[in-house]
Amino acid sequence: MERADYSDTNCSVARTLAVMGDRWTMLVLREAFFGVRRFEAMQRNLGIARNVLTDRLHKLVENGILARVLYQDRPERHEYRLTEKGLGLYGPLIALMRWGDEHLAEPEGPPLVLHHERCGRDMAPTLTCSECGETIDPREVRPLPGPGARAHTRA
Amino acid sequence: MERADYSDTNCSVARTLAVMGDRWTMLVLREAFFGVRRFEAMQRNLGIARNVLTDRLHKLVENGILARVLYQDRPERHEYRLTEKGLGLYGPLIALMRWGDEHLAEPEGPPLVLHHERCGRDMAPTLTCSECGETIDPREVRPLPGPGARAHTRA
Repeated sequence: MERADYSDTNCSVARTLAVMGDRWTMLVLREAFFGVRRFEAMQRNLGIARNVLTDRLHKLVENGILARVLYQDRPERHEYRLTEKGLGLYGPLIALMRWGDEHLAEPEGPPLVLHHERCGRDMAPTLTCSECGETIDPREVRPLPGPGARAHTRA
Repeated sequence: MERADYSDTNCSVARTLAVMGDRWTMLVLREAFFGVRRFEAMQRNLGIARNVLTDRLHKLVENGILARVLYQDRPERHEYRLTEKGLGLYGPLIALMRWGDEHLAEPEGPPLVLHHERCGRDMAPTLTCSECGETIDPREVRPLPGPGARAHTRA
């Protein structure tokens, strides 16, 4: 029986996790999405060891997720800004947040609410189908081999 | 200046990652969402060490994400099914997949496509605002302290 190759090397989930699945990396990204751009502020907010933060920032820059930008000349100071590629990680990040809000928050409610400036209301980010616009129910979705699937034989 | 407490202990992203941010855990979940329910099949598909898989399944059951269900009496055999809480992780999982498809896939395209049985088309899961229905642009969202925020003083 043929089946798409879901192995680590050919799975977009595994590949994405390899880039940002480390817990500190994702917390650094969270800071970036909250508008925190400077090393010192990230370090203070996260209580992260300086060498760990340096390492995670370096990898995020290497992967094109953050850009290291000079913002002051004397002395030289850099800040970290999300690239377009990095901005694309907003979806995964708030999807993780939403689930935590629903299942792991304190009884008084979630620590954050997301205010949608476009419509002026607090919102729940919702996963919808690009084709019909309906909210996605996982039981109604079937994964099929895509163009990049490597079919292989399975006993 | 007051600011919401974004520390690890009061952040839904950090809490969610503590439960499922481990790479093997997320790959086990991927299998579960693809309909794989049995230890042997997961082990074979993932090429994961048996003791690691046992450990991750145990934790997922403990956290109420998977349920261990008897499906055969003699000999006793169990399978692992997603609970409602577990089904809620579909959003984070396909959000991660989507980003990988866009940024890390092979030139020929993504390894999987998602077929929406409800509308009969292949789709891109899209993050929209629950209030106005528009696609979410991270630059238009502001995080505000929620009911569970613990305000604290910051120098």
